[in-house]
Amino acid sequence: RCFHFCKLPGRVMGIRLLRFTSVVIIVLLLVAGALTALLPTIKDDKLPNSRREPKAQSQSALDSFTLIMQTYNRTDLLLKLLNHYQAIPHLHKVIVVWNNIGEKTPEEMWNSLGPHPVPVVFKVQTVNRMRNRLQNFPDLETKAVLMMDDDTLVSAHDLAFAFSVWQQFPEHIVGFVPRKHISTPSGVYSYGSFELQNPGFGNGDQYSMVLIGAAFFHSGYLEDFQRQPEAVYALIDETQNCDDIAMNFLVAKHTGKPSGVFVKPVDIRNLEKDTNSGYSGMWHRAEHLLQRSYCVNKLVNIYDGMPLKYSNIMISQFGFPNYANHKNKM
Amino acid sequence: RCFHFCKLPGRVMGIRLLRFTSVVIIVLLLVAGALTALLPTIKDDKLPNSRREPKAQSQSALDSFTLIMQTYNRTDLLLKLLNHYQAIPHLHKVIVVWNNIGEKTPEEMWNSLGPHPVPVVFKVQTVNRMRNRLQNFPDLETKAVLMMDDDTLVSAHDLAFAFSVWQQFPEHIVGFVPRKHISTPSGVYSYGSFELQNPGFGNGDQYSMVLIGAAFFHSGYLEDFQRQPEAVYALIDETQNCDDIAMNFLVAKHTGKPSGVFVKPVDIRNLEKDTNSGYSGMWHRAEHLLQRSYCVNKLVNIYDGMPLKYSNIMISQFGFPNYANHKNKM
Repeated sequence: RCFHFCKLPGRVMGIRLLRFTSVVIIVLLLVAGALTALLPTIKDDKLPNSRREPKAQSQSALDSFTLIMQTYNRTDLLLKLLNHYQAIPHLHKVIVVWNNIGEKTPEEMWNSLGPHPVPVVFKVQTVNRMRNRLQNFPDLETKAVLMMDDDTLVSAHDLAFAFSVWQQFPEHIVGFVPRKHISTPSGVYSYGSFELQNPGFGNGDQYSMVLIGAAFFHSGYLEDFQRQPEAVYALIDETQNCDDIAMNFLVAKHTGKPSGVFVKPVDIRNLEKDTNSGYSGMWHRAEHLLQRSYCVNKLVNIYDGMPLKYSNIMISQFGFPNYANHKNKM
Repeated sequence: RCFHFCKLPGRVMGIRLLRFTSVVIIVLLLVAGALTALLPTIKDDKLPNSRREPKAQSQSALDSFTLIMQTYNRTDLLLKLLNHYQAIPHLHKVIVVWNNIGEKTPEEMWNSLGPHPVPVVFKVQTVNRMRNRLQNFPDLETKAVLMMDDDTLVSAHDLAFAFSVWQQFPEHIVGFVPRKHISTPSGVYSYGSFELQNPGFGNGDQYSMVLIGAAFFHSGYLEDFQRQPEAVYALIDETQNCDDIAMNFLVAKHTGKPSGVFVKPVDIRNLEKDTNSGYSGMWHRAEHLLQRSYCVNKLVNIYDGMPLKYSNIMISQFGFPNYANHKNKM
């Protein structure tokens, strides 16, 4: 392929040719180098072993949430759940509300097992109170809170989807556990789930609460909670229960709409049988459900009315896990 | 009980007693009559056999909807569907868009088989156009429109629920048939359903359109539709297709959000195989889907951009038909 040059005579042309080809080769190498720099960077999620920059710096307050998890006498479950939840997409920070009074937190062990994807803060409490988790923590930097019980495992897929739903309904409690109240001819309310009679607004069932032990809600509601009547705190402290019912009352009163939006979970599990502590959780107490009915009626007195509203909207994720989960006979 | 009076002597006291007791009896009867008038009136839905006052007078513009059904060459299906749809709760009126040019409407037969629950208006068309159903009919008195294809049967339960969902999302097309567009590296869009690749926003599938052949939407959008660029009408007339895609473009542009909200139907059926007319519907044409991809790209040109947005929200009715359809392993 050196038709033209090869015919020319002599050593002079040979040197020029050498220079020319060297220059060409160098130029080609430079171009190749430039092209390599222009290649699209391989996305993080294709390199699971590479080190990622700390999430805290890349998540903005609107696009991420803070996990608040209160814990009592189930540190083994706590740590198992922290390993899972620390890697949820869009998580900004974890706040662990440490209700094990007088007991050291596992912070040292946690740090020795770092690095971790997000910061985890252990808030040591002075009294073991159910409503400790509803403080307006200064560590909270995000608009969204994800509150989880320390025995509840929800899949990352469910959480990522529910967070996107919360972003579309930021004034509601968006979560996985729906409950309802019903009124009776005597005017006394009762609390329950699907086993209770439907409230009677058309077909099917209704829910009027979404429990905060597995839900997203706006951090502003923690602020609001600090401004409730004293009787609300007294009720929660008396029963060591019902903080979630009180939150639903607060939200419903604030919005004038149903407090919650129910997202049907694909994979939600209760791990309490897996604990070594032998501690089985408040809801096993004999009086638990009766207490909750009691709380509904007390809160109606305190708030001078029933603010809870019914909804029958159930949200699922289109095309997930089954890509044709919306298919019909048409 | 006449301690005081009975001791007093004489006939004079007897007459006074008589007057007194008569007055007391009359007063008691008047009070009883007044109490009866104050009793709560028995709700209509507990008296299924009693004659109800015509819906048209009791439904307000906000609490009811107008069914618009366009029909061509399937009068047998039309009449079967009208018998079903005329009894849907919250229906105000039916508008039948009669595309059988030159053919008499079944109005006489309809009237001879009355009375009917709601008024039905037959709008005779002069040209058989797909977009005839998108006129701003003066007969429309409600804020909500339910648009149905003349071969589609949706259960009353589904419609009642979807209407309640529309009332919560009045600026969206709330319906039962989701579709999507996808973009390709060439910049050319393609139209389809779940068989197409997911748009790639996280897990699962997304939809960017809800078809108007089985959906609720705000009657204001019919008004808006009259003010679209001429090229839109020309496209719909050229293809005798895509009016629904055009409506989704319109709504998405108007709201800046996903145009539709998908409600998963429990019972939706296509009746076209049941027709005696032999006419099998536009979507059986070989070029139907290709036309719809073509329309998406043309509309992007006309509107100078792609306004459609994705959503993955799928709404179902809580506790219906199965009262525990939200139950999970917890």
